[in-house]
Amino acid sequence: MEDYYSLKWMGHSLSMIDQRRLPLEEVYLEYTEPRDVAEAIRTMVVRGAPAIGSAAGFGMALAALQAQSGSSESILRDLEKAGNILKAARPTAVNLAWAINRVLLAAQGVSDVRETVIAEAIAIFNEDVQANIQIGLNGLELIPQNARFIHHCNTGALATSGYGTALGAIRTAHEHGRNVFVYVDETRPRLQGSRLTAWELQKLGIPFKVIVDGASGHVMRTRGVDLCVVGCDRIAANGDTANKVGTFNLALAARAHNIPFYVVGPTSTLDKNSPDGIAIPVEERGADEILTIEGQTIAPIGTPVFNPAFDITPHDYITSIITEKGIFRPPFRESIKMGTL
Amino acid sequence: MEDYYSLKWMGHSLSMIDQRRLPLEEVYLEYTEPRDVAEAIRTMVVRGAPAIGSAAGFGMALAALQAQSGSSESILRDLEKAGNILKAARPTAVNLAWAINRVLLAAQGVSDVRETVIAEAIAIFNEDVQANIQIGLNGLELIPQNARFIHHCNTGALATSGYGTALGAIRTAHEHGRNVFVYVDETRPRLQGSRLTAWELQKLGIPFKVIVDGASGHVMRTRGVDLCVVGCDRIAANGDTANKVGTFNLALAARAHNIPFYVVGPTSTLDKNSPDGIAIPVEERGADEILTIEGQTIAPIGTPVFNPAFDITPHDYITSIITEKGIFRPPFRESIKMGTL
Repeated sequence: MEDYYSLKWMGHSLSMIDQRRLPLEEVYLEYTEPRDVAEAIRTMVVRGAPAIGSAAGFGMALAALQAQSGSSESILRDLEKAGNILKAARPTAVNLAWAINRVLLAAQGVSDVRETVIAEAIAIFNEDVQANIQIGLNGLELIPQNARFIHHCNTGALATSGYGTALGAIRTAHEHGRNVFVYVDETRPRLQGSRLTAWELQKLGIPFKVIVDGASGHVMRTRGVDLCVVGCDRIAANGDTANKVGTFNLALAARAHNIPFYVVGPTSTLDKNSPDGIAIPVEERGADEILTIEGQTIAPIGTPVFNPAFDITPHDYITSIITEKGIFRPPFRESIKMGTL
Repeated sequence: MEDYYSLKWMGHSLSMIDQRRLPLEEVYLEYTEPRDVAEAIRTMVVRGAPAIGSAAGFGMALAALQAQSGSSESILRDLEKAGNILKAARPTAVNLAWAINRVLLAAQGVSDVRETVIAEAIAIFNEDVQANIQIGLNGLELIPQNARFIHHCNTGALATSGYGTALGAIRTAHEHGRNVFVYVDETRPRLQGSRLTAWELQKLGIPFKVIVDGASGHVMRTRGVDLCVVGCDRIAANGDTANKVGTFNLALAARAHNIPFYVVGPTSTLDKNSPDGIAIPVEERGADEILTIEGQTIAPIGTPVFNPAFDITPHDYITSIITEKGIFRPPFRESIKMGTL
């Protein structure tokens, strides 16, 4: 597919592109320690909810390889320990805990714990790639022949195990001959739009322009926008969706202009244990993300900040949720309860 | 008042703080050539609609000092030439053309053109400071005892001849014992919030936190915001308001949360010749403002951008317009037509 990857299992190690150094440098780092994978997730070497789910799965595989030889019980204890460290790396994306719990569940009551854990991590990765491809196909019916998008953050191959979610839907439309154009929110503070999405769209040959996040309303009012697509880090049982900060503002602008607003992601992002958005923990990150860029200070010394990494878009601002299992429309609570989403 | 200034007339030259270098360096530049003042406006050494109005007035004063000695007619011709160069520096803020036209009008039919022009430029500056102080007092009745603001861009002493417009209203409230707190939109692409407003609030001792522009909806939803205040670069005859890009997105978020949204500025920002927002020219600036920060590239080479410097907030999103002449409420067209605004 792509000539780059977010992460790849190498048999006895995990290789990940250092997304902090993109687009200026394309550097792959190799991981053998679960603790280092957790640190890579925390520091955002790897980011994007599906990608960190996969990375956490492989972190568990590394823990299995490292586990003291001995009884299955002692291996399981080591795995649980590693799982707790990995889960603590970032709080909002539910895919992280989902992947770890799935690996732990698979490892129960089997004789070959190591092989089972590695196989489960690989399955999580492969299923995610397949889910993304299916998401793209499912989204086609919502994308007109001439489609001007606004896209927030990065949701491409870099944010997933491969292919992409919201960006995957754009990509599938492009590959199916739709005439697509993307306004790319730069996505402060970490600039995943201008750093990563621009880089992926350039490689895919899809036309785009980067805008500052605050320009989306103006673009809608003056340029004509057909639809907005965003990824998701956690979808609550009522459809409220946590995603990269700025998503809610984009949804507000879309609503005011009657522009469809689509949340796009695999069903691994669904958290039935969170009844609504209020129950979703929103990570707050350090002041440096806002006050420095590439090591350059851009504010007075001692400037205080409020830096939520995510926001919650209430379900009533979401037109549909596009998943590998199909397109879900309001009321989302029904589809989620019936297990179809 | 402040221990710094945006611009100051030195008798035979104009001194301006280089706002591009704040907050890291506090450097004042001295101008004697009208053409250099135009370039300083274009490159945003000085910015903020009232400040560039005053700067243009003093640019005309410099042109008068330089004019060939001779007939009043020849001086007026030189002044008109300088006025055209200054007017072309930036298209959106109407205060620029307003100040130049006012100086040119004052110079008609007088014997002492040089003295008249200099006096008029000084009057524009002094009246702007007085207007700002009056704006702050007029705004007091709209500001509750405990007031959590969101503020966009920079509208302080730096953006004006002194004191400030929206930031001036916050400042007056603070000085009158209101318990104020300001969420400061960093204001991409040029970061006037984190660079300039943070710097001014720190000096004023007013508590604040910087947020990314995309976080305003989340802050309103989760933190409690009492009011939004923004400046203005041009107010059309129906109340539609051009201001720094991102203003409209903030207005959309305010509307969705039933939070009052106040436009604050002197009546010199009113343009009765623009019937509505569509008639206001919106400046587009270069790609570098989005793709580089402090000389550091943050996007792939060749990334295309759309970089409008301003946006238009339709009048129906504006709760009131706070001016030195009073507080104006919808329908704005009436107050504007009747000349009370």
